[in-house]
Amino acid sequence: MEDIKELLEKVKNGEVSTDEAVLMLKRAPFEDIGYAKVDTHRKLRQGVAEVIYGAGKTSGQILGIIWTMRDKGQDTIIITRIDEDKAGAISKEYKLDYNRDGRIGIIGKKPEPDGIGTIVVATGGTSDIPVAEEAAFTAETLGNEVKRIYDVGVAGLHRTLAHLDDIMSASVIIAIAGMEGALASVIGGLADCPVIAVPTSVGYGASFNGLSALLSMLNSCASGVTVTNIDNGFGAGYTASMINHMKG
Amino acid sequence: MEDIKELLEKVKNGEVSTDEAVLMLKRAPFEDIGYAKVDTHRKLRQGVAEVIYGAGKTSGQILGIIWTMRDKGQDTIIITRIDEDKAGAISKEYKLDYNRDGRIGIIGKKPEPDGIGTIVVATGGTSDIPVAEEAAFTAETLGNEVKRIYDVGVAGLHRTLAHLDDIMSASVIIAIAGMEGALASVIGGLADCPVIAVPTSVGYGASFNGLSALLSMLNSCASGVTVTNIDNGFGAGYTASMINHMKG
Amino acid sequence: MEDIKELLEKVKNGEVSTDEAVLMLKRAPFEDIGYAKVDTHRKLRQGVAEVIYGAGKTSGQILGIIWTMRDKGQDTIIITRIDEDKAGAISKEYKLDYNRDGRIGIIGKKPEPDGIGTIVVATGGTSDIPVAEEAAFTAETLGNEVKRIYDVGVAGLHRTLAHLDDIMSASVIIAIAGMEGALASVIGGLADCPVIAVPTSVGYGASFNGLSALLSMLNSCASGVTVTNIDNGFGAGYTASMINHMKG
Amino acid sequence: MEDIKELLEKVKNGEVSTDEAVLMLKRAPFEDIGYAKVDTHRKLRQGVAEVIYGAGKTSGQILGIIWTMRDKGQDTIIITRIDEDKAGAISKEYKLDYNRDGRIGIIGKKPEPDGIGTIVVATGGTSDIPVAEEAAFTAETLGNEVKRIYDVGVAGLHRTLAHLDDIMSASVIIAIAGMEGALASVIGGLADCPVIAVPTSVGYGASFNGLSALLSMLNSCASGVTVTNIDNGFGAGYTASMINHMKG
Amino acid sequence: MEDIKELLEKVKNGEVSTDEAVLMLKRAPFEDIGYAKVDTHRKLRQGVAEVIYGAGKTSGQILGIIWTMRDKGQDTIIITRIDEDKAGAISKEYKLDYNRDGRIGIIGKKPEPDGIGTIVVATGGTSDIPVAEEAAFTAETLGNEVKRIYDVGVAGLHRTLAHLDDIMSASVIIAIAGMEGALASVIGGLADCPVIAVPTSVGYGASFNGLSALLSMLNSCASGVTVTNIDNGFGAGYTASMINHMKG
Amino acid sequence: MEDIKELLEKVKNGEVSTDEAVLMLKRAPFEDIGYAKVDTHRKLRQGVAEVIYGAGKTSGQILGIIWTMRDKGQDTIIITRIDEDKAGAISKEYKLDYNRDGRIGIIGKKPEPDGIGTIVVATGGTSDIPVAEEAAFTAETLGNEVKRIYDVGVAGLHRTLAHLDDIMSASVIIAIAGMEGALASVIGGLADCPVIAVPTSVGYGASFNGLSALLSMLNSCASGVTVTNIDNGFGAGYTASMINHMKG
Amino acid sequence: MEDIKELLEKVKNGEVSTDEAVLMLKRAPFEDIGYAKVDTHRKLRQGVAEVIYGAGKTSGQILGIIWTMRDKGQDTIIITRIDEDKAGAISKEYKLDYNRDGRIGIIGKKPEPDGIGTIVVATGGTSDIPVAEEAAFTAETLGNEVKRIYDVGVAGLHRTLAHLDDIMSASVIIAIAGMEGALASVIGGLADCPVIAVPTSVGYGASFNGLSALLSMLNSCASGVTVTNIDNGFGAGYTASMINHMKG
Amino acid sequence: MEDIKELLEKVKNGEVSTDEAVLMLKRAPFEDIGYAKVDTHRKLRQGVAEVIYGAGKTSGQILGIIWTMRDKGQDTIIITRIDEDKAGAISKEYKLDYNRDGRIGIIGKKPEPDGIGTIVVATGGTSDIPVAEEAAFTAETLGNEVKRIYDVGVAGLHRTLAHLDDIMSASVIIAIAGMEGALASVIGGLADCPVIAVPTSVGYGASFNGLSALLSMLNSCASGVTVTNIDNGFGAGYTASMINHMKG
Repeated sequence: MEDIKELLEKVKNGEVSTDEAVLMLKRAPFEDIGYAKVDTHRKLRQGVAEVIYGAGKTSGQILGIIWTMRDKGQDTIIITRIDEDKAGAISKEYKLDYNRDGRIGIIGKKPEPDGIGTIVVATGGTSDIPVAEEAAFTAETLGNEVKRIYDVGVAGLHRTLAHLDDIMSASVIIAIAGMEGALASVIGGLADCPVIAVPTSVGYGASFNGLSALLSMLNSCASGVTVTNIDNGFGAGYTASMINHMKG
Repeated sequence: MEDIKELLEKVKNGEVSTDEAVLMLKRAPFEDIGYAKVDTHRKLRQGVAEVIYGAGKTSGQILGIIWTMRDKGQDTIIITRIDEDKAGAISKEYKLDYNRDGRIGIIGKKPEPDGIGTIVVATGGTSDIPVAEEAAFTAETLGNEVKRIYDVGVAGLHRTLAHLDDIMSASVIIAIAGMEGALASVIGGLADCPVIAVPTSVGYGASFNGLSALLSMLNSCASGVTVTNIDNGFGAGYTASMINHMKG
Repeated sequence: MEDIKELLEKVKNGEVSTDEAVLMLKRAPFEDIGYAKVDTHRKLRQGVAEVIYGAGKTSGQILGIIWTMRDKGQDTIIITRIDEDKAGAISKEYKLDYNRDGRIGIIGKKPEPDGIGTIVVATGGTSDIPVAEEAAFTAETLGNEVKRIYDVGVAGLHRTLAHLDDIMSASVIIAIAGMEGALASVIGGLADCPVIAVPTSVGYGASFNGLSALLSMLNSCASGVTVTNIDNGFGAGYTASMINHMKG
Repeated sequence: MEDIKELLEKVKNGEVSTDEAVLMLKRAPFEDIGYAKVDTHRKLRQGVAEVIYGAGKTSGQILGIIWTMRDKGQDTIIITRIDEDKAGAISKEYKLDYNRDGRIGIIGKKPEPDGIGTIVVATGGTSDIPVAEEAAFTAETLGNEVKRIYDVGVAGLHRTLAHLDDIMSASVIIAIAGMEGALASVIGGLADCPVIAVPTSVGYGASFNGLSALLSMLNSCASGVTVTNIDNGFGAGYTASMINHMKG
Repeated sequence: MEDIKELLEKVKNGEVSTDEAVLMLKRAPFEDIGYAKVDTHRKLRQGVAEVIYGAGKTSGQILGIIWTMRDKGQDTIIITRIDEDKAGAISKEYKLDYNRDGRIGIIGKKPEPDGIGTIVVATGGTSDIPVAEEAAFTAETLGNEVKRIYDVGVAGLHRTLAHLDDIMSASVIIAIAGMEGALASVIGGLADCPVIAVPTSVGYGASFNGLSALLSMLNSCASGVTVTNIDNGFGAGYTASMINHMKG
Repeated sequence: MEDIKELLEKVKNGEVSTDEAVLMLKRAPFEDIGYAKVDTHRKLRQGVAEVIYGAGKTSGQILGIIWTMRDKGQDTIIITRIDEDKAGAISKEYKLDYNRDGRIGIIGKKPEPDGIGTIVVATGGTSDIPVAEEAAFTAETLGNEVKRIYDVGVAGLHRTLAHLDDIMSASVIIAIAGMEGALASVIGGLADCPVIAVPTSVGYGASFNGLSALLSMLNSCASGVTVTNIDNGFGAGYTASMINHMKG
Repeated sequence: MEDIKELLEKVKNGEVSTDEAVLMLKRAPFEDIGYAKVDTHRKLRQGVAEVIYGAGKTSGQILGIIWTMRDKGQDTIIITRIDEDKAGAISKEYKLDYNRDGRIGIIGKKPEPDGIGTIVVATGGTSDIPVAEEAAFTAETLGNEVKRIYDVGVAGLHRTLAHLDDIMSASVIIAIAGMEGALASVIGGLADCPVIAVPTSVGYGASFNGLSALLSMLNSCASGVTVTNIDNGFGAGYTASMINHMKG
Repeated sequence: MEDIKELLEKVKNGEVSTDEAVLMLKRAPFEDIGYAKVDTHRKLRQGVAEVIYGAGKTSGQILGIIWTMRDKGQDTIIITRIDEDKAGAISKEYKLDYNRDGRIGIIGKKPEPDGIGTIVVATGGTSDIPVAEEAAFTAETLGNEVKRIYDVGVAGLHRTLAHLDDIMSASVIIAIAGMEGALASVIGGLADCPVIAVPTSVGYGASFNGLSALLSMLNSCASGVTVTNIDNGFGAGYTASMINHMKG
């Protein structure tokens, strides 16, 4: 695998043309195990850990993908959207650090935080915590210091303001809310850093399973706010980590 | 007309049964002028002024309705959703107090404020002002003290907070915003009085002509918030006046 | 806690600036118990009772929040959206006055009615009763006289008209309906007081889980009608109580 | 053409099999004039008048279709959705009885009413009149007595009730309304005859161009109510005439 | 009860004014049994049978309503949307003629057909049969001859054409289809009588639970087609019966 | 049955007019077995196998339809959307070749491939495999060579490009994807053959059960792409087979 | 350019690997003229003519792209979505064969038809003709025999059946309809060839700018039907030509 | 103003509590000029330039806001969404650097690029250029090196791949596309940096004014992709600049 890493370094340095790199990448990169094509080089390209999206996969399929990854030298593996049963099945084979709220786990050890600053993960209410934990855990496993501030919805503005120091000193903020999703705008207006807004499906009636929060966040008047899919805690944590590891 | 007023008093006092009142109301209340049925007793029932919804009516039609109302003794008439041209045509015949921003006018004089307290009309941005003026003007013509605080959207929270005194001392608040509509939740959380939220069609893209603000306001986590149709400044002003005239 | 109450009085009187008040409020107001931030001063600010939104919380979490509230001196606590199982679990620890239809309960005693007049809670059909009971119970626990008139949908107009006296003498009306939601307009046209319309998810096919009733109510031609989220009986009861306690 | 009429009689009587009739109908029934295929036998099958849907056709095209129809013996021709300009162009060639509000006209003379009873055309507001006139004019040209009751929206229930006699003695009722569309349910509950509900695009904001009224009418709790497309006055008038000409 | 029947006759004859009739109807017409208001005069006004909408009611509630109706002299009672369990519970107390496919039953005996002609109930596919049976059974219990032609969807046009005789000789047609809902247009084009189109929730993917069929039917180019709510077999059967009993 | 086959040949050759053929087809073509009308001539008209859509049918109903088909000489029968239980029940009576992933089976033997070239079935992810297997199995049973390339979503473009040879040499491509559905555009841009895009309901949040992929595919900038209903693997396989059997 | 053609032949023959071909294609294929990247090799890859999508481009921009294409040896150029003004401007410089209805033109000469059979282009109504002409003209310029059958909507089934010979002998059918879009299902059921369904934005009210026809066509019960974007006549003509040029 | 800047530094350093800072910020920060509240301290907080959202403001209003800003020491002012007429009016008073395509301008001089790396702005087609120019110009005025790669939509994948070097070496990428919006996923899969996806309203039919691209981008399978409102080039440029100025 190391040659791929070197290859990509050379692409960045201009020593190898991308044309040649594309050809090389095409030859090496994945194992075909029937029900899935397992990337075995992505660690090199997009981060230190490889990710398995667990939704809709059986424990057996997940274990097969883990085995293939590790066989190819991938030690750190994040597995998202797995319930306790699947986590239990995986734990019998591998040492799994599992986050029950976020339904997410990691095989291998979390790296030391090496980002620019702190990623703040804020939620509007208690019911948003599962999405928040998915985001926070993801960011931590990708080497970030994470600060959680939960249940700070704007209908109780004093709660939001109580965390003004955290908000103003954050490196990146993940603002997670269902219902009316106003948290993103208020934090976006206060903060001086990129804000990743995650609408959640929390709510009832005219929340339409997250549509209300999604539209609200997309229309935020605050600058610096971008949005992920509904309930996409992993995506928010991943992107926040990318931003928190920008290099000058 | 006075007998109808008395009639209704008697209904409230139980002197007359509603059955009998319904029959009476059925006989008296409107003039049929072909293209419209003009209520000539509503002043007594729902407020001091009668209202003409001007959208989709010609100047001639509006003048005809005014004539009929005044002929029946209605002196104070509010006309909503009329552009400057129509306002000009009406002004030639009657003394019209016209609000250009709110596209609304009144024939007859505004009453002195006699409500419980002050109605605060707040907007998220400058573009929401037309809807706000429709609301404010309506409330004024129905006998309310109105305080306007415009351009206090939550993405600039310091602007909202700068009006904390107005918000906390209001009798009723009308919160008007397009885009993400978060103003209603923030004000709803701070205030200790009924908040009427008015979504506006201000915005672009995923605001979907006010749908985003509408859903956001309906999902507000703050208690005491109810919602009107998109851009319905008149309805908000009318209801706010009703609340501000509650009698013990 | 009493000093906060006094503080807010002083804000209203202008003795204390809001700036100073904000600082004070920020310091005192909530307990952080991990999964939730429990407001311990809201009684003073927004009503006599504190509210726990029970949906998505375990019995254990709810009990924890209750304990914290009572520890801070909050005696009267409303808990919404709890099924019979949760109500049973709470009842083992505290004396709970539980309304099965409305899935809502109160710890502590309901205050005597001290509002301006009577709040009428009307429904279009039998299936709307759960939402209506949530609204009625909420209003009662906040100190209001409540009159229930159920199953008075406009397709049987004689049923609606049979309650004309109630409608015309109400202080505030909560009109609850699914399907086509026409009840709000008919009552709004008859009544001379604020009408809070609550669309319900009752219906099938093109009711689209309450969307039909929601749109219908937002478009009501009757003045004085505002709307809550679908099935939001609590919000309607809370706002109706606010209006019914307006002070001159 | 007469032989087709006879043919269809024979089908009904069982003298001719439908198989044979299909073949015959396939051979005779239309003229192909390039931009349109003009039915020349429909008079026999579906009513006394032939209909041209004028929207999106030029005056020239409409005149061509008229010429073809008349050349084949069709004397009575209804033309829908034509503005005054097109009506003027047609009037130069043919005697056109034109209804400006309904943007509809007839060549040839209206038949005497020969239906079972009276068709009532009711509207919620003044702005619904164009759709109502399309419906009323259509019904009249198809041989029906029509009673118009306009501006009887349910927010002014006394106006609706003032026409209770008309509603209760109608043969068929066409209930036309935009906004919340509640008129259909109220009339459907009062009447003892089929009610055809026509949603209109009248309104703003959350009326979403008639969607609100459409959904409301589809969800009507009143029995005997069916619905047409938004603004489809012609379709309502046509179906009402069919029903009013049912034969025992 | 008989006096009410006479009363209404007098209204039609003009012997009694509607004003007086309204008052009378208001006094007599329903029993309040707590969870429902049971109409006890509707037989006189809208048909021979009274209807109970069973969805969302317990067996006990339904039995209570039946008891009240029968106590007031109503012998023939239709109960819709009841599963086999509820039907079984009712059968223990009353003789119930139950239609399993249509989840509908009748207490009392079906009248002899006395309508103008035959009501044809057609479906696009086999899966539409439950809605069709609800419609057919309803029409039969209201005194109509019913002809069922099932699984005649337009993608197999030869099946539709095989029933051309039925279609062309029908008095009223109920066209029931999910998916693309094209059946209504094809039948509407062939038939010479009113067509009531019932969209069903049959389908998957972009059928969006009946939305596709609903929109398709509302946009039908065929004249004489009106539409009910999705899956509303009862409403279609009821309206078809009304039309089939029109009196000259 | 053979005479029908000959008949259709004669229609194509012009020896028999379609008019006459329609009559003949109308007489022969289906058996009415109560709950369904079973086509017994479609083999001749639209392919070698007859299809039963299994969703919403009981095992008993399916067996009845199979019996009728076979009784009329139809040996090869495809049954779609049947779970393992139904497949088991059918297997007891007939030899069923069942594809568990695609929930589809065939009675009778698959023909040898006799199409123009190879049909490529590609999926964006692992979760799309059930829809893909339905498509692939359908194509195989209709006589096509099928090449499966699964889990080649465009977010891992190297995976897509690794199959460039397959894509460029395909006769028809079925591109199956949920989420953002971008696979269709990328393949459509690379390929030189018709591409049938199948959106799937795979995803969460703003995928709205396949709506996102559906819209994405309909808007594809690549020429030669057409779209089926969400999850409609059968339809895609069927159409691809039609195209792959075009005859010069 | 010829070497690219040869290159691709070699790819198909396996003489050159696709890896190498991709590299070569990357170097050669387009000219960057600032506001657009003009493909100069697509003729070789996807058909004899190159296409310019004219919507949103000025006459000047279009002329620039034409010049670049011709400079690279592309003689035959189709330009879509150009109004008469732009067509006039282009005609001054180049010989343009322009189709006014379809707003489409071709520079260079149309090839002789060399497809498998005839492409039938059918429309439901007269208003669908512009989309149909775009499709028909596209197919003709790509070397296909085209048969137009317009105004054959299923509400006048005799019109559809009158063209049964065309439908049954077609090689590919393009079924174009707005409103309820039922044409695709009826033709799909009759035909024995691939049917490309094109929904159009023709209609009003609940047609929602083509949504109704789009959903209807996606849900077609007829096998062999696939769907394009609303009003996408070009895409349908292009794909139909691909299918009509399949080679054994 | 300098003291505010210092103040904020002190907040970051912990020398001043946020409580005190909030009070200070509340006193100073904006000028109320009636129709707008002009922030005069935001330069210090959120970037070097202040921004005026020009949509819905008259030239006069914009000039008033500019005057106020400059009066308070703000030299660099970006004005978005202004057409050429407004730009002309502003140019008469101030030196305006105007970008016609992006309808955006700057008063004062653009700073030298001082970000971490290059921001790549990519579009799917030519029609997306206005949104792209808004983004690119914004990023440039905020001190970023910008690389434009336009018309690289994925249906012509060779165009996308031709810019692989730019994509792989970018610091941040803004991916702008209408129609199916697949560009974001393809670039997101290739790139190793944050990707900001901007859906545009470019397209027709089922693009539903950008909804298709919006949903597609929200559902992107590629990690590191977040989304802005439809057509929000300014927001994307602003956020990209924030990320490109992250400091270790």
